[in-house]
Amino acid sequence: MSQATGYRATTTPGTVEPFELTRRELRADDVEVRVSHCGICHSDLHALATPPADPVGTPLVPGHELVGEVVAVGSDVTRFAVGDPVAVGNIVDSCGECTMCRAGLENMCEDFPTLTYGGVDRVDGTTTLGGWSTSYVLREDFAYHRPPGLDPAAVAPLMCAGVTVWEPLRTWQVGPGSRLGVVGLGGLGHLAVKLAVALGAEVTVFTRTSGKADDARALGAHRVVVSTDHDAMAAAARTLDLVLDCAPSAHDPGPYLRTLALDGTLVVLGHLGAATVDAMDLLRARRRLASSGSAGRARTQELLDFCGEHGIVADVEVVPSARLGEALDRLSRNDVRYRFTLELSDLAHRPPQH
Amino acid sequence: MSQATGYRATTTPGTVEPFELTRRELRADDVEVRVSHCGICHSDLHALATPPADPVGTPLVPGHELVGEVVAVGSDVTRFAVGDPVAVGNIVDSCGECTMCRAGLENMCEDFPTLTYGGVDRVDGTTTLGGWSTSYVLREDFAYHRPPGLDPAAVAPLMCAGVTVWEPLRTWQVGPGSRLGVVGLGGLGHLAVKLAVALGAEVTVFTRTSGKADDARALGAHRVVVSTDHDAMAAAARTLDLVLDCAPSAHDPGPYLRTLALDGTLVVLGHLGAATVDAMDLLRARRRLASSGSAGRARTQELLDFCGEHGIVADVEVVPSARLGEALDRLSRNDVRYRFTLELSDLAHRPPQH
Repeated sequence: MSQATGYRATTTPGTVEPFELTRRELRADDVEVRVSHCGICHSDLHALATPPADPVGTPLVPGHELVGEVVAVGSDVTRFAVGDPVAVGNIVDSCGECTMCRAGLENMCEDFPTLTYGGVDRVDGTTTLGGWSTSYVLREDFAYHRPPGLDPAAVAPLMCAGVTVWEPLRTWQVGPGSRLGVVGLGGLGHLAVKLAVALGAEVTVFTRTSGKADDARALGAHRVVVSTDHDAMAAAARTLDLVLDCAPSAHDPGPYLRTLALDGTLVVLGHLGAATVDAMDLLRARRRLASSGSAGRARTQELLDFCGEHGIVADVEVVPSARLGEALDRLSRNDVRYRFTLELSDLAHRPPQH
Repeated sequence: MSQATGYRATTTPGTVEPFELTRRELRADDVEVRVSHCGICHSDLHALATPPADPVGTPLVPGHELVGEVVAVGSDVTRFAVGDPVAVGNIVDSCGECTMCRAGLENMCEDFPTLTYGGVDRVDGTTTLGGWSTSYVLREDFAYHRPPGLDPAAVAPLMCAGVTVWEPLRTWQVGPGSRLGVVGLGGLGHLAVKLAVALGAEVTVFTRTSGKADDARALGAHRVVVSTDHDAMAAAARTLDLVLDCAPSAHDPGPYLRTLALDGTLVVLGHLGAATVDAMDLLRARRRLASSGSAGRARTQELLDFCGEHGIVADVEVVPSARLGEALDRLSRNDVRYRFTLELSDLAHRPPQH
């Protein structure tokens, strides 16, 4: 057992408070991570919108994009040693036996993967507490080797935003010659552009206003289409092979479907609710609608390795722990380019404030 | 120019009357077909629901699943000779130059293919008149060799219903080992079952009532699931690779999406309107939603050849020309197993009735 300081939801929606928590005694296949940074994801805001029934007894501790260093290992751990740079994403266990786990898609585990926070530990049944804390304990199989040459604060968002866009880029085999569209230039979208450019694709960014056009080009995009410009959208019809729809709110997928050429696919990543499509938009060029979220273990490590080789990280604004509340407030207004990362190393030796 | 007898829409929705029409003088690349039978498709009913502005001057003559024999050929025709058994589907021309035409997907021609009826002839600008007539004239490139060993009346529905299900069966490479679902056992569905069984797939039929279970098995289906039986649907979850949704009216695709295993695809064929999907149903097993309609020239001929080799035809009820009105009325109530074919050879030597 080890002590840590973390942030738990209060009874006021959208707010957290520091508290002391206990991490479990290391099991044979566990590693303990000293967390230096953890991303602040939109899904954290969603989780905080509904305070838990018992905020003190069963705390909700957000955070599933955490990076740090291994500080202890269980007796059977073989892949990590004390001092290793490490990263953890949004799942920390899965059944390991279902069709999905055997296919390397632990994120789609049919028995439901154990989430990094708010999940149920498969051994002792406790509720998992997330990465907005100074330490984390998990099975080594769900920890990843973090490229040491990259800024850890900027690596953190790769663990959720990054893998979310990496999975479809790899499933649909994006590479040289691919014509990729990215809808929305936020946390997911800006990483999709960087990764796709590094994979050799020709990248088109769709944005609602022209204000982000220069940013998109600076990230490497080859073309920017303002989605409210009907002529520009009409000119983009049938020009793309794959579109990653990273827009976070509900919208009509039709205009983006129509930018797809023969056998193209629109992958919904940002708004995972109901989507209404006109079958004729699918039929006309044999297009497909798909969705994706997170990635399996192999592809997660693959992403980190790729980013290490290509020097790719997220564009982040680092939030000192004392300013977490302010960052949450700004995120709720989408006031961030492109991702907040919470600093936790500044908290490690401070006594928690109650 | 040649004279023919055909059926045109009257000013009363859903009804037709016989009349005399003139087919154009053969162009160098034209063939003239003496039509013996033509399928009666749901889309013909849709077309008749709104009578044309000028029912006499610009008649609406339905029919796009026609079979017969070549009775004359233009001077440059090389693929057909007088006496050849022939079949024609729902398009009779296309631009031949766009990406789709060059990919052999003339049905998706970006300049819009010339429909067999209600289309605009690309040479003289006249409105095309369909296959509910004793003769048809078209470019030889859009006529197909009909297997002589098959009952022509039962071949006719292959030209629309058949190609509509054949296209996705081939695009998604259905064969031995494929686990295919077919939703709805009507004109499209019964052909999907026959063709998929002949391709070697394991076929599951979804039907709303158990009344069609024996029929489905008689057609070769290996499993029948009553879609209103929640337990049976739950048991079918994640068991299929491809589902062809042939149900003709609007419905929730969710229950059928959930029968798909990893990377499975639901292809909407029956109801080509708006469809609302929950992105999570797509995300959970990396499923896809697609749609399809008709097929290009190469795949159309391929279907006819396959049916000739395997002795596959539609289950049809042959409608003598004098009883066309009655058949239209029954079709509007879905009272057919599984497809009506209009006989036209019985009309060839009768004077038209006005």
